[in-house]
Amino acid sequence: MESLLKQINISHEQTADALKIAYSFRAQATGAVVTVEDSLRHQPSGISSAALKAGIKHENIFDIGVIKLHKPACVAGVFTRNRCASPSVVIDREHVADGKAQALVVISKNANLYTPTADSDTRAVIEKVASETDIKFCDVLISCTGVIGRTLPLAKVQLALSSLENNLKTGLIPEIAEAILTTDTCAKVASVRLGELLLCGFAKGAGMIEPNMATMLAYFFTNIAISPRQLKEILREVADLSFNSISIDTDTSTSDTVLIFSTGEIPADSATLSDFKLALLALALNLSHKIVYRAEGATKLIQARVSSALNNAHARAVAKFIVNSPLIKTAIFGADPNWGRIVMAIGKPISGIETAIDPSAITIAINDEVLFHSGRQLAADLGRLSSSIKDSKFIDIHVCLGEGDGEHTAWGCDLSYDYVKINAEYTT
Amino acid sequence: MESLLKQINISHEQTADALKIAYSFRAQATGAVVTVEDSLRHQPSGISSAALKAGIKHENIFDIGVIKLHKPACVAGVFTRNRCASPSVVIDREHVADGKAQALVVISKNANLYTPTADSDTRAVIEKVASETDIKFCDVLISCTGVIGRTLPLAKVQLALSSLENNLKTGLIPEIAEAILTTDTCAKVASVRLGELLLCGFAKGAGMIEPNMATMLAYFFTNIAISPRQLKEILREVADLSFNSISIDTDTSTSDTVLIFSTGEIPADSATLSDFKLALLALALNLSHKIVYRAEGATKLIQARVSSALNNAHARAVAKFIVNSPLIKTAIFGADPNWGRIVMAIGKPISGIETAIDPSAITIAINDEVLFHSGRQLAADLGRLSSSIKDSKFIDIHVCLGEGDGEHTAWGCDLSYDYVKINAEYTT
Repeated sequence: MESLLKQINISHEQTADALKIAYSFRAQATGAVVTVEDSLRHQPSGISSAALKAGIKHENIFDIGVIKLHKPACVAGVFTRNRCASPSVVIDREHVADGKAQALVVISKNANLYTPTADSDTRAVIEKVASETDIKFCDVLISCTGVIGRTLPLAKVQLALSSLENNLKTGLIPEIAEAILTTDTCAKVASVRLGELLLCGFAKGAGMIEPNMATMLAYFFTNIAISPRQLKEILREVADLSFNSISIDTDTSTSDTVLIFSTGEIPADSATLSDFKLALLALALNLSHKIVYRAEGATKLIQARVSSALNNAHARAVAKFIVNSPLIKTAIFGADPNWGRIVMAIGKPISGIETAIDPSAITIAINDEVLFHSGRQLAADLGRLSSSIKDSKFIDIHVCLGEGDGEHTAWGCDLSYDYVKINAEYTT
Repeated sequence: MESLLKQINISHEQTADALKIAYSFRAQATGAVVTVEDSLRHQPSGISSAALKAGIKHENIFDIGVIKLHKPACVAGVFTRNRCASPSVVIDREHVADGKAQALVVISKNANLYTPTADSDTRAVIEKVASETDIKFCDVLISCTGVIGRTLPLAKVQLALSSLENNLKTGLIPEIAEAILTTDTCAKVASVRLGELLLCGFAKGAGMIEPNMATMLAYFFTNIAISPRQLKEILREVADLSFNSISIDTDTSTSDTVLIFSTGEIPADSATLSDFKLALLALALNLSHKIVYRAEGATKLIQARVSSALNNAHARAVAKFIVNSPLIKTAIFGADPNWGRIVMAIGKPISGIETAIDPSAITIAINDEVLFHSGRQLAADLGRLSSSIKDSKFIDIHVCLGEGDGEHTAWGCDLSYDYVKINAEYTT
């Protein structure tokens, strides 16, 4: 699994006020280096989209996005494991089961769950999109994101959707990536081209970005000819290395959804398929990192690389401990190379692993500066490292556990005053 | 298990600037109501103690505490499950194995782990205490708390301990509770008397209180005649309902230790034993709540009561999800009765529980105000509830899941600007 990640070259460049991360890989089919673009440019044909203003929470902002495929597409999805999943997630799970779908409607500014009519409202929205587009009910997917517990103003939504056919425009319009946002600071889009193979995606979320609910939504569109089963397998593998490896605040939303649609126009041999998987991973990393480091309140992206763990699952747990630790997150915010907190995080109890960690086997590095090795702190210049952390928006923490062959990388962000401010504001 | 907790009456009273929580229970042996005192008054005889100034980190503050029992005592302990546990924890585990100990030395301002000499330094300190007090090496216990990775100034510690016999005073002196502190705002002590049965304890910790490491230490002393096995069983049960049910920032220290010593002077029948257990629980709740709500950066104590869960383990997981959620912690800090975040927290995935939660079975209340019931938000006055949260230092969140008979209560605190400030400050 992890060897897939190593085939993606992630490089970062920092300007005065922005962090720019580039994602590229070498295509197996052609040997060429392929780079992800921060636009929806490389999108498959056979798609129309519309961004609508229903006035769900505020007037005159996009709060509904609709995507229509001209023909039924191959589809796969991964969804939140929250036990209070929204009706939209429950219905989507049913609708993707046959590997086929033709439309997607995204409602933003309202999570549409834990209201007396949440389920029937969700179904009514799907019904409206189905009838307006002449697509079967079971081929329409839906996502809702926003505040929990407020009744959806269904009549407003239905009214806005009445003009759907007039508003549908060819292709994925830029407004579609805006329509799904809640309090995100910017739209998150990416695309890549490998010869005739086109892949694009957009996302919203999470955590700090959405003070009411840490919802993460991402949608991909491609033109590769692939079976629903293969598409699902690849999406799961990619989501595991990207969306499931980021964390802003450990909170799991009731609406998290990642969907991929394929129009199936480009025949795929095994080289194309393996390149497609790399391309999807590069895009998923691009979007998931944007979710983390473009979050309101985040000032730094934290990358936790764990190697020589007992196994990959162990490495994943330790990498998540690091990016989830409030003590490490605040230390990074404060530019403090406090490696003792990393020791604490890597030792957190994991069910089934009882053995003590041997200090002499551990290596800890921050931004490639080795701080701890062979059982002792190295004579690193901690003042200089503190300056480096202060000046960097991309913080790499690398831990070698010296216990086995497992490895994993996870990403998170620092914990700042603004995180508290944004999430403490009175919202009800 | 949980029925034990219900036998403790926890009441709170709020003055302009302080929260005062009282703990009482009805003694089975006498029928009298017994109240916990916030002092070390009810301590068993046969104990001497000393607080020393070794200058480990700063001059002229207590940084070593030593307690000597006049005779070997019955002892039991529970320790951190962190895989990077300090040498002091590793050695203590060995030394309590025979259920017997006679001295305790606590070093503060230095965690004494992840240095090349951590293990030998720990043993040298024990050796020094053993020789100065003429107690066997294996009957001396040790705790260390402070910054990780700094070599202990052993010579200074040994020098300070050379004057131990001259400094030992009768009883547990108030300075002993100070000597174990790091950046705590105040000492944490409590005691209770049931006839001739005496029980006292003191603690330090955690999280926000110790920016370098979230260490929690607690020590109890009693005079009940009890077998080491019974003492350990009772300590485990009590720790599970108290110290293991609090959380400040989800970080698990490398040095967490709870020890109980008994001089064995008061014979115990079954009524006394069951009262002893209640008394120990009342004291453990008192100290663990002090750790949470007297933490620097905390403005409110959050109590999460979960009932009608699938089982007690499920209830415990959900209660911990609530007190650990940054989104709930910031909402409480901001006096926002945002119950949607509670819905998110109670649905977080738990391994082995796949069924969806039925919204119509759930009830959510904050400070006894029911917010959600029978699948809908009640017409509660959210503005008034927000004022109530703003004015209260004790916030009770009660969730009925409607799934079974499991119940658990956990305690945490809000997430404030000061938490970020304290933990982001440059400490190295």
